[in-house]
Amino acid sequence: MFELNPRLEADTDWVLDLQLSRVLLMNDSRYPWLILVPRIPNVREWLDLSSTDQALLLAEQLQVSQCLQTLLSPDKLNIATLGNIVPQLHLHIIARFETDFAWPSPVWGRGDSVRYPPDEKVALLARYRSALAATSGV
Amino acid sequence: MFELNPRLEADTDWVLDLQLSRVLLMNDSRYPWLILVPRIPNVREWLDLSSTDQALLLAEQLQVSQCLQTLLSPDKLNIATLGNIVPQLHLHIIARFETDFAWPSPVWGRGDSVRYPPDEKVALLARYRSALAATSGV
Repeated sequence: MFELNPRLEADTDWVLDLQLSRVLLMNDSRYPWLILVPRIPNVREWLDLSSTDQALLLAEQLQVSQCLQTLLSPDKLNIATLGNIVPQLHLHIIARFETDFAWPSPVWGRGDSVRYPPDEKVALLARYRSALAATSGV
Repeated sequence: MFELNPRLEADTDWVLDLQLSRVLLMNDSRYPWLILVPRIPNVREWLDLSSTDQALLLAEQLQVSQCLQTLLSPDKLNIATLGNIVPQLHLHIIARFETDFAWPSPVWGRGDSVRYPPDEKVALLARYRSALAATSGV
């Protein structure tokens, strides 16, 4: 049975579920930052997924990347599976700008996150939800 | 015409060429750290690759990941495309251990790299080359 890791649960908000992955918004207004979590129990690495799910995760990575690219035209996308602290497999997709807080460093471990104001977060979640629902799935 | 970015050229050694990607060893003995660079000119993002090459890059990511997993049994694999400094698309695959220098932080921007002694590097390159050549390609 799939359960979201408590740390991911605490740091993010639910955007929508794709075929394989739950899409989450990281509650850090310094960066447009989405996280994909395959809804499969006990998976830590890409290698732990079936071939079908590996291909599906790539398709969803590309779908979410294209969504951020189209909405925001970032200077760079940063895409990563790290998981040194949160073992549950999760894929970061972050739209980076040359003007953002951590540029050109990676975002992890750079100061404290800056939570979204609640109203702004609700609007943003709706925006991502509608943009992702409109893009072609797999 | 494909040319390796000069910064990647300076920081790495050639391991071997897979069907799509050049495999490089990062010259930092603190971490077993390989880098895949698709041999396609002017590509910055996964999104810039053709669908065929996206699938191929995933297959090579999994092949190299499996190789590190089998050789080293790391505590975690860290896999990322960042590219904020080096724009040429390159995929980091790093075997992480709870005892390594940066754990549990990501490796980027944590102190200076520690170059391999030349003899050790030659032996390591041969080890990776032979392990990768022995794994099933795509």
